[in-house]
Amino acid sequence: MKIDRKTVDQNIDIKHGKIEMTHGSGGRAMASLIDEMFTQPFSNPLLEQKNDQAVFPVEAGRMVMSTDSFVISPLFFPGGNIGSLAIHGTVNDVAMSGAVPKYISVGFILEEGFPLIDLEKITISMADAAKEAGVQIITGDTKVVEKGKADGVFINTAGVGILSENLHISGDNAQVGDKIIVSGTIGDHGVAIMSKRENLKFESEIISDSASLNGMVAKMVEAVPNIHVLRDPTRGGMSATLNEIAHQSKVGIRLFENDIPVQLAVISACEILGLDPLNVANEGKLIAICSPDKADELLHIMTQHPNGKNASIIGEVVEDTHYFVEMETSFGGRRIVDWLSGEQLPRIC
Amino acid sequence: MKIDRKTVDQNIDIKHGKIEMTHGSGGRAMASLIDEMFTQPFSNPLLEQKNDQAVFPVEAGRMVMSTDSFVISPLFFPGGNIGSLAIHGTVNDVAMSGAVPKYISVGFILEEGFPLIDLEKITISMADAAKEAGVQIITGDTKVVEKGKADGVFINTAGVGILSENLHISGDNAQVGDKIIVSGTIGDHGVAIMSKRENLKFESEIISDSASLNGMVAKMVEAVPNIHVLRDPTRGGMSATLNEIAHQSKVGIRLFENDIPVQLAVISACEILGLDPLNVANEGKLIAICSPDKADELLHIMTQHPNGKNASIIGEVVEDTHYFVEMETSFGGRRIVDWLSGEQLPRIC
Repeated sequence: MKIDRKTVDQNIDIKHGKIEMTHGSGGRAMASLIDEMFTQPFSNPLLEQKNDQAVFPVEAGRMVMSTDSFVISPLFFPGGNIGSLAIHGTVNDVAMSGAVPKYISVGFILEEGFPLIDLEKITISMADAAKEAGVQIITGDTKVVEKGKADGVFINTAGVGILSENLHISGDNAQVGDKIIVSGTIGDHGVAIMSKRENLKFESEIISDSASLNGMVAKMVEAVPNIHVLRDPTRGGMSATLNEIAHQSKVGIRLFENDIPVQLAVISACEILGLDPLNVANEGKLIAICSPDKADELLHIMTQHPNGKNASIIGEVVEDTHYFVEMETSFGGRRIVDWLSGEQLPRIC
Repeated sequence: MKIDRKTVDQNIDIKHGKIEMTHGSGGRAMASLIDEMFTQPFSNPLLEQKNDQAVFPVEAGRMVMSTDSFVISPLFFPGGNIGSLAIHGTVNDVAMSGAVPKYISVGFILEEGFPLIDLEKITISMADAAKEAGVQIITGDTKVVEKGKADGVFINTAGVGILSENLHISGDNAQVGDKIIVSGTIGDHGVAIMSKRENLKFESEIISDSASLNGMVAKMVEAVPNIHVLRDPTRGGMSATLNEIAHQSKVGIRLFENDIPVQLAVISACEILGLDPLNVANEGKLIAICSPDKADELLHIMTQHPNGKNASIIGEVVEDTHYFVEMETSFGGRRIVDWLSGEQLPRIC
């Protein structure tokens, strides 16, 4: 994002225009696009260095880096769009280490013919999401491919953050006896996308939970620095995330179905769509694992925050040489919660 | 890249297999793919943290961040492939600040049906390029889209590096009287790609110059810390890069055509293809701008390095309120070197 406004002598028609191959050429048309679509909404002093890279100061300590590409379909959905999601996703991946997310890079892959007005909606959502999360978009890249060679817009974000020395939060740190907390109702994002895709209507619209969780995480690690694991159950849902943690930490996990918060509308939709809410993606929820003596305090902190008001202790870490995730069902039985081997929800993020 | 090898119970058939939607599902098939294709070739202790983010130590000072997405077509070309290019491109964008590139994130967008054997070639090239440049791939992400919704493979890389306090290299720092040095022959990458695309044959094959320049940059800033500008003339070629610098620094630029190194084969190919070598992308060249009293020393350092053996002083920075880039041609005339307003070389990187 290296173009000075003064170099731009072609205005773009946002209302009626479409992405053309020349917007990816490195020439004047690209400069106009970058200036009007990206530099202006994302504006901050680091981005305005206008070099192919951004320079920022750091203090001695530890940093964290993460990346995600976003290929969600549809691009616009109840509760957000690919732009806000691309910020939330990477902010959350950085925050799940306990770090404070600071700087974000953005790479766009645009399909020829994509309406500029939709691109503008997306970049404004990104700018708003970044502002809300307290992160700055400091560098970026734009590529254009021919019609039919992409699907509207793909976005990659990478993020870096600052990690306090006293935190040691990691997927391999769950310990037998630990309590497992989820920050709210599960399955909202996946069901919102699938309902939109299948054009299903429910009495109350199901809204994606897409949100940045770094604000809540900051409160959590302040109160309980010794959280063992944090992870956001995105693709593959709670099942995939808990199975990963069980394997990384070499433990078993026991869940209690009655304690897992799920919206009634999500349960109904899952029945219609043939989905298990445990396998459905979330984009604004996290799982926290901590020692049992800290669990109530951590839960209290979470329920005080808007992103955690429906938080609940849903299970515990147990000894199990098979690293199984098991659930005590509402009917008093017990079942293995496996992760999916097949494809259930394509392009959910 | 968060999956433990022990969690993987499905092997993938690299020789005959293709990307399936389930490789992007967050489940077991994705775990197998990530493990065999990415975690093994990219192996390093930070990547093996196996969380959704990687943690690394930093000293107090300045850091640099950059990103690039790669959509090049064809994916394999003389002198490299999209994988090596994705490392070289981001390493160079970080290095053009004078920084030492350290850590890279990688995001893959894969099209359903893409042959695994080609993906393996790409990831091995990335691993080799990262090793050669002395950077570590520490975190990543994989998405899969349906057949026809992408074009084989798109790759995003983001990179961070450490910037010494004594360097102040920036596109707005060119000063009247400065000398302009290019590190070698121009147009090689673009012509290599276009020749392959158009199936043109020349007596000697034209090879892309795709390479990481951080090794040479380290030598350059060690000898001449007061370099004013460094930039790699990629998309849009030398014309776009020099016009950007002229506008950022509010100066004019005068080039001497006779001093600009271009391979004869590239000149011939450009004539056939109707291209101007000044507009053609490079992926292993840089432009350095420094004060006239340091130019010979800097040139000497560059010519001692394999990436700069054909380096040449090609012009100078002049006063010009129009910020024009002008060239004294071989015939003694003078012409404006404008950047392109249209599309000349789609999907060149």
